[in-house]
Amino acid sequence: MTEEKGLSYSQAGVDLDAADRAKEALKELVARTRDSNTLSEMGLFGGLYAVPEEVGTPVLVSSADGVGTKLKIAFLTGRHDTVGQDLVNHCVNDILVQGATPLFFLDYLAAGHLEEGVVTEVVGGVAQACLENGCALLGGETAEMPDFYSEGEYDLAGFVTGVVERENILDGSRIKAGDALIALGSSGLHTNGYSLARKIVFEAMALGVDDVVPGLGTTVGEALLAVHKSYLKSILPLLKMDRINGLAHITGGGIPGNLPRVFAEGLGARIETRSWEVPLIFRVLQEGGRVRTDEMFRVFNMGVGMIVIADAAEADSVANDLAAAGERSWVLGEVTDDGKVELI
Amino acid sequence: MTEEKGLSYSQAGVDLDAADRAKEALKELVARTRDSNTLSEMGLFGGLYAVPEEVGTPVLVSSADGVGTKLKIAFLTGRHDTVGQDLVNHCVNDILVQGATPLFFLDYLAAGHLEEGVVTEVVGGVAQACLENGCALLGGETAEMPDFYSEGEYDLAGFVTGVVERENILDGSRIKAGDALIALGSSGLHTNGYSLARKIVFEAMALGVDDVVPGLGTTVGEALLAVHKSYLKSILPLLKMDRINGLAHITGGGIPGNLPRVFAEGLGARIETRSWEVPLIFRVLQEGGRVRTDEMFRVFNMGVGMIVIADAAEADSVANDLAAAGERSWVLGEVTDDGKVELI
Repeated sequence: MTEEKGLSYSQAGVDLDAADRAKEALKELVARTRDSNTLSEMGLFGGLYAVPEEVGTPVLVSSADGVGTKLKIAFLTGRHDTVGQDLVNHCVNDILVQGATPLFFLDYLAAGHLEEGVVTEVVGGVAQACLENGCALLGGETAEMPDFYSEGEYDLAGFVTGVVERENILDGSRIKAGDALIALGSSGLHTNGYSLARKIVFEAMALGVDDVVPGLGTTVGEALLAVHKSYLKSILPLLKMDRINGLAHITGGGIPGNLPRVFAEGLGARIETRSWEVPLIFRVLQEGGRVRTDEMFRVFNMGVGMIVIADAAEADSVANDLAAAGERSWVLGEVTDDGKVELI
Repeated sequence: MTEEKGLSYSQAGVDLDAADRAKEALKELVARTRDSNTLSEMGLFGGLYAVPEEVGTPVLVSSADGVGTKLKIAFLTGRHDTVGQDLVNHCVNDILVQGATPLFFLDYLAAGHLEEGVVTEVVGGVAQACLENGCALLGGETAEMPDFYSEGEYDLAGFVTGVVERENILDGSRIKAGDALIALGSSGLHTNGYSLARKIVFEAMALGVDDVVPGLGTTVGEALLAVHKSYLKSILPLLKMDRINGLAHITGGGIPGNLPRVFAEGLGARIETRSWEVPLIFRVLQEGGRVRTDEMFRVFNMGVGMIVIADAAEADSVANDLAAAGERSWVLGEVTDDGKVELI
């Protein structure tokens, strides 16, 4: 039963020592995200985080997400330090729309073979974005799954937990017909629409990842890896001043798919598509793939990463304050009472 | 720019309507896991969960995990209702070892193509185990990633958040030399060692998933899909009575890899391997793959799913109480002061 030449776990494709070494390299990165409520070191079965005492009636808000096939762009370019930022920022925006600020984050990274350098780059990006969002990287799982992912590929998912004072939850109840819709500009595709974008760029347009996008002046890889923005820092001051009636994070499904998620029954929206110039990358994709405009708006954010819903009387001052915080921001439409999202 | 024959998202392999339909089918399953602290319905950007008021100084304990290549057995057998249970039970055990009871769970399910039936089976298993562990399924992400996963395959990860009263955290500080180590029997491989197990069974032993395992009387598929046990219900009464000094969940790395994770510097363990009969499935794997015994103990749980650490004087009564709760339970060794885990 204990033959010298039998099978071992390494021969089955799993190197537990390599996984341990990668974890060791990450310890310092992760330690930088700790705050006074973080009660555990890495390596325990679970991470410990004290509920902040300053929140009177704390409600936890939690969200899970992935990066989707944007990862393929990381594989093609060999650049792995941005996708972790996409993941964290996406998750942080998702709980921000309910009024929550992030407490902690956990990641799941799975690969056929864990390359230490790649793991460190990916989780380094996660840790950097956690730092920027004031959120502890409390734990995570790196899984080596032979025969599962193609050579050099991986999948990445993340989970954020934040907190909101119960009476400050943004639950849509304050949104009413006539409210203004104020856009916050996106930095690019964020993390949605990459299956279509890749098909257009690499098949229909036959570009390579290092080719310059016509008219854009950056490579395909650079344009498509642009980091998903976190809107936490710009929006938090407005939340604290109680000037926001609702928020919609524009992810898969675009404006028509996401705006209704925060509306009560019967509410709709009129979006003035001429209120902004759709960024060039989206126009390149539309022309390159000859995509219908309504399909473009259903798949991509079209330059709008987040929509703030505020009293009509507040519209301009909210947009101005967001612009002063460094955002591209403009009034792009209004809430209606006809139950539909119209793009005009 | 709006040609009729251009590319659409469906043609790029992503069917947003199918994903929506699967989500709709899951709503009822998920609703059954709700409790009085669950403040949100499915479909919001983030799930809402009130911190339980009965916990005086609440500390959150959170853990992320996957199912690993055990998923391959689900693909081979076409049975998708157990892996979600593995995932939840694994995560619940991981936070239990720090004294926490689960509050809520989120899952991440990624596939090349989301088949509605499979999604419903997988997430149905997640929801069932959430129910059994008294834990709300608060949200999740189902990601369709064409060109990423092989046809019929998927990856599954999960994230649990639980709570423990700050003074009741099991942080290892109560564990001392001379303490008893009490085993809780596993139900099989749980979720670890599947890369090696598959190599042994399907390559070295050349068995098929529907073949009966020699001497075991069940098929390879049934033996390898046995659900990872949750020890929450058996252990919770002992935790409440303050009879437990520490807990170790025996996952990847086996007994020698996991027991030291809960020990303070300098502590070790002596494990009497003759105190139990290693279940037949592990002996079949060892013989089939001619695996060294120390490697077996480093990769597999060898029949021990959880180890309870208690005062030596309590050893027998703890083991008896666990047996009365329906567990296979026995004293398998003791804590030492020599900093090593010895298997004798």
